[in-house]
Order: sequence, then structure tokens, then C-alpha cells
Amino acid sequence: MIQSKGYAAQDAATDLAPWNFERREVGAHDVQIEITYCGVCHSDLHQIKNEWFPGIFPMVPGHEIVGRIIKVGDHVKNFKVGELAGVGCMVDSCQHCENCTQGLEQYCLEGSTQTYNNLDRSGVPTYGGYSNNIVVREEFALHISDKLDLAATAPLLCAGITTYSPLRFWKVGKGHKLAVLGLGGLGHMGVKFGVAFGAEVTVLSTSPSKEKAAKELGAHHFVVTSDPEQLKAVKGSFDFILDTVSANHDMNMYLSLLKTNGIHICVGVPTEPITIHAFSLLGGRKSVGGSGIGGIPETQEMLDFCAEHGIVSDIELIDIKDITASYARMVKGDVRYRFVIDMATL
Amino acid sequence: MIQSKGYAAQDAATDLAPWNFERREVGAHDVQIEITYCGVCHSDLHQIKNEWFPGIFPMVPGHEIVGRIIKVGDHVKNFKVGELAGVGCMVDSCQHCENCTQGLEQYCLEGSTQTYNNLDRSGVPTYGGYSNNIVVREEFALHISDKLDLAATAPLLCAGITTYSPLRFWKVGKGHKLAVLGLGGLGHMGVKFGVAFGAEVTVLSTSPSKEKAAKELGAHHFVVTSDPEQLKAVKGSFDFILDTVSANHDMNMYLSLLKTNGIHICVGVPTEPITIHAFSLLGGRKSVGGSGIGGIPETQEMLDFCAEHGIVSDIELIDIKDITASYARMVKGDVRYRFVIDMATL
Repeated sequence: MIQSKGYAAQDAATDLAPWNFERREVGAHDVQIEITYCGVCHSDLHQIKNEWFPGIFPMVPGHEIVGRIIKVGDHVKNFKVGELAGVGCMVDSCQHCENCTQGLEQYCLEGSTQTYNNLDRSGVPTYGGYSNNIVVREEFALHISDKLDLAATAPLLCAGITTYSPLRFWKVGKGHKLAVLGLGGLGHMGVKFGVAFGAEVTVLSTSPSKEKAAKELGAHHFVVTSDPEQLKAVKGSFDFILDTVSANHDMNMYLSLLKTNGIHICVGVPTEPITIHAFSLLGGRKSVGGSGIGGIPETQEMLDFCAEHGIVSDIELIDIKDITASYARMVKGDVRYRFVIDMATL
Repeated sequence: MIQSKGYAAQDAATDLAPWNFERREVGAHDVQIEITYCGVCHSDLHQIKNEWFPGIFPMVPGHEIVGRIIKVGDHVKNFKVGELAGVGCMVDSCQHCENCTQGLEQYCLEGSTQTYNNLDRSGVPTYGGYSNNIVVREEFALHISDKLDLAATAPLLCAGITTYSPLRFWKVGKGHKLAVLGLGGLGHMGVKFGVAFGAEVTVLSTSPSKEKAAKELGAHHFVVTSDPEQLKAVKGSFDFILDTVSANHDMNMYLSLLKTNGIHICVGVPTEPITIHAFSLLGGRKSVGGSGIGGIPETQEMLDFCAEHGIVSDIELIDIKDITASYARMVKGDVRYRFVIDMATL
């Protein structure tokens, strides 16, 4: 076993603290990555606090992982020691179901194995990227370009693919008006991708103070949704809304901003169920869809696209000892736009 | 003015009864239709009882209208006296907005004029098809084939187009597994169209007693949703669900029956809002969409398709004096599958 160190929550009531644990030896098809940076996702906090479902403790969060390959198994074909590599939200799946064989491992019909807070296929808990290393089968490791700032690349592994994938699936691009709802870790990546794909991008926000930041990210327009006049002016105007908000919000109001045939895409997970009046859909052949991260081939495609177009996340690098304080700031929306842990501080 | 007779509700608490009223004279672009048959839609009852919104009274319901042209205006181009014709849920729209010019008059951005319980563009209440005649601008009249049983054609004007349109929009056909939820006026047409378009059709029902009828309509499979074993067997199996139910129901359960990328299409309007857990959508990139009737060009296309393929509604012809008793039976689901009023009984 590989002696490893990280930060873990011992239970849902306890803050993260240093913890030593073991990872499996590097198998024939595995790579071992020395972790350089790990992004901080809002879902890390949801999970250590049992806000979605009862968690597996001790829990080492983190699924926006980048670093360097330090060991490869005998049968590894696509990675070499010394190369940059990343790991996102999944570390395994059945690899043979209808979805896996189409590269949709996130929708594996037998269930994909999450990078942390999950049991792997032999029943051992998985531990995430708030740690010094990770061992993963090579099919779930991603190639990372050395053209990009490495720390700012980490959030692409979750926030990036979570917004890239639905915009590609629904073919959002030139000629489309895209509204991005919420300007956090996910939302700011949605703006960057929407702009890169050629859409006319509007940020919808309750905070007038975010206008400057939204425009700096490339958004063409900014609408304060708490202002009835501004809201009225964009009724029935968007082809798509990319909804990154995980707080509860009035879906019917947002549906009224869509054009006929418009699609409201949910990538955030509010704690309360979504409530929709049937007429909000029938009145303009509208849809509400959801999308979860992306498959491995598409995650690689996204990383390559980012390398080509110089796209990374806007980040604030933190010391792992500040993780609890950073969570508190994240909950208040006081981060532009993603905290990334410098793993040298571990 | 044209002296007309029909059945009207004087207010939301009163049953339908004979009522004399006036229709406008036949204008240059109008046709006058002597009504032969009118279908009975569940929405007729919702509206006379103010279940959706406060209605305009006296109210003459009915928007599944077929009959014969008895007069045409000087500038009418496409209809001649003596021809069969039909009128559906709309009698007017702005004719110049982005949706109207694409033949999506049902989503007219200025609001389409409903066949009854609405004010026309000069502010006069509209009266529906439970009457001896109707005057309508020719753009909102449909050609009806003499190849089909005329009474059984009437429900195509609402139940037909309401199910035809979304199946066409979402390109449901060969290679798709389609579930039809609810086997009433809408659902039985959904089965017929789904089969005609080449889909593998399953009827989902809480009543085991409906299996024989579903198969007679052409459904390939029948699933009793109250049987956990039958339900388990179809988890994650459908590409589309056509949801025709206007009673409240558990959307999350039905979403679990969809494949990855599956779409749940709502054409019924439950009184309570739809409640969806975000994970029900994100867990398989699923969508919930809604669709309202269809535009005029597509309604004509549907009628022509039906004439070509010999598709009509299964109906029970009634005397207009039995309308209140028929409503009571409709509410209990005791009709196969649509009541149609024989207007000779008026």
C-alpha cells in the first residue's frame, strides 16, 4: 500500500484536518499522480456536510486534480512518468455498458465510481484530491497541456466539463442567445465557453455589482434579475439558459425569459425540488434539461479545446490550512471564481 | 349579425344549456361553417368550471369542430361552399410575428385568439363549436378529407394535433421506444401516431383492465405502473414519454423510466405544478418538455397524414342534451376515447 497524506473530514460535524491514509499499489493499468493542485468545488462542502446524502467518512474531498505522473503500471499505454495529468469526478466505471462504450462513463448504467465519497469496485472507499497523490486506472486520467497555467487548469476537471458538455450537447453556438444564470465557479466557465462557441452571452444576476466582472469574462450583456424593467426587456429572448445555481430559485420566471423552443439547462443541484407550472413549458414548447459533468473522451476534448483557445478558470490559490475559511467565503460567493489548493502547502 | 344557437354555461356553477347568440357577418376573408360534429375535450370542462383561470361567460365551449362550408367572403381563396372544413383551438393570431410567420400561430407572440373563452382582436368574445355554425377567417380553417369518418375526424383538431406535433418536433420514430402515459382522448391518439411513425410503443397505465384496449390501438407493450415488478423491468428503457395526464403524478418516477438523453413530453396540464428533483434530470441528461397543440400548417399536415393512413379518433357519438352526463363519464375515464357531439341533435 502507498502511505498517503491529505485533509479529511472525520464526520459531517467536523472541519477538515490532516489525515494519513493508504492508497492501493499501482496496478498494471494504473497511473500514480503526484498532486500539484486541487480545485475546491461547492459539491465538496455539500458532501462533507451530508447535504445531498449520508457520506462515507473519513472523507478526503477533491475532484479537480492536476499533477504529474510519478509511476505507471506495466500495461499503461497512454501515460509516461513525468507527464502532466488530471483526474476529475470519476475514477472508474463498468466500461462495457451502452453508455460507457459511447464515452458517457458519467452515466454508466452500473454506476460510475466517484473520485471520493464512494466505494470502488472492490468495495474500498475512494479518497479525493485534497491529498499528495492519487492512483487511478489510466482510462480515467486526462492529459493536461503544459501551455496553460497548471493551477488554473484544475477547475476545468469539474467546473469546466460541467458547463462545456451541455453547451456541446445542445449545440449552443453562433446565432444563439445564451443566458448564464449564476456567476460562480460553474457560471464563469459557462460564460467563457459560451463566448468561445460564438453565442451571444448574457449574465443573469441578482447583484448589480457583478456587471464589470461579467463583462471582463467576455459576456456581451448583463441583466439584474431583481430589476423588473431589465427583466421585462429580456422576456422571451433567450435560446438557452445555463443554470448553474444551487440555491433554490423560481424556475417559472426564468422559463418566461426563453424564446419558443428554448431550453433551460440545469447543472446546479438545489436542495429543494424544481417546481414548474405545465403552462410554462407548453406555452412555448420549452424544456428543462439537466446535465452531469461529461464523459472521459469529452473531458479530454474540452481540455484540448482550452489549450488551443487559452481558456482556464479564474482562480484564487490557497493554502490547504485555509480550507475551512475558504469554504465560508465560497458560501458567501466571495471568490473569483474558484479556490484552488496549492498542494505544496500540505 | 348571424343569429346562432348553441349550448352555453352562463357561469362556472351552472350546467350547459341551450343559448341563442350572434356571430359576426361573413367578412371578405371569412368562411362560415355549418357545424356537423364537435368533439368534447377535457379542457372544455376545465374552462367552464374556471379550473385554469376565470372564464368569459356565457361560454360556448368546443374546439374540435368539423362541418361544411356554407358561405365564403369575397376574397376567400382556399375554400368553396359545400366543402368539408374544420376549426381547432385557434381562430386568429397576429399573423406577422416571428412565430406566426413560421406557422407556429399557437405560440403567437401577441397571443393567439382561442376558439372560445377568449376575446377576438376587436374585443368580442369568441364562442366555440357546441353550436350550429362558426365564422372564421379562412387562414384558421382546415381542409378535411371526405375519405375519413367525419365524426371521428373532429377530435383530430385538438387531441390529434396535440399529440402529433410533439412527436414530430422531437422526431419520434423508427428505432425509438415511446411510452404513452394515460390512455384517454390524447393518449389513444398518441399511441396511433407513435405506431404510425414507426416507434415501439408502450402504454403506461395504473389500470390492468386497459391492456386489451391498448393493444387494439396498436400498442406493442403494456405496463401496469402500480406493479413494482413491471415497473422495474422498464427502468431506463424509453427514449420518450408522451405524458397526456392532467391529474397530478410523480414525475421523478417516470423520469427514472427514461434512457440517458430521454425526453419526457408534457401535453396535459395538471392543476398542481410539476415537481422534479434536479438529480432526476442530471443523472442521465434527461429533459422535461412541453408542447401546446400545433400551428395551422402542421394541423393541415396532420389531417392529410390521417387521411392517407386512415387514422381517426375512436369516438362515442352523443346527443348534445347528454353533455353534462358525458362530462361526468369523461372525468371517470369512462369513454373510449372521445365523446363527439352530433350537432343534428342541437
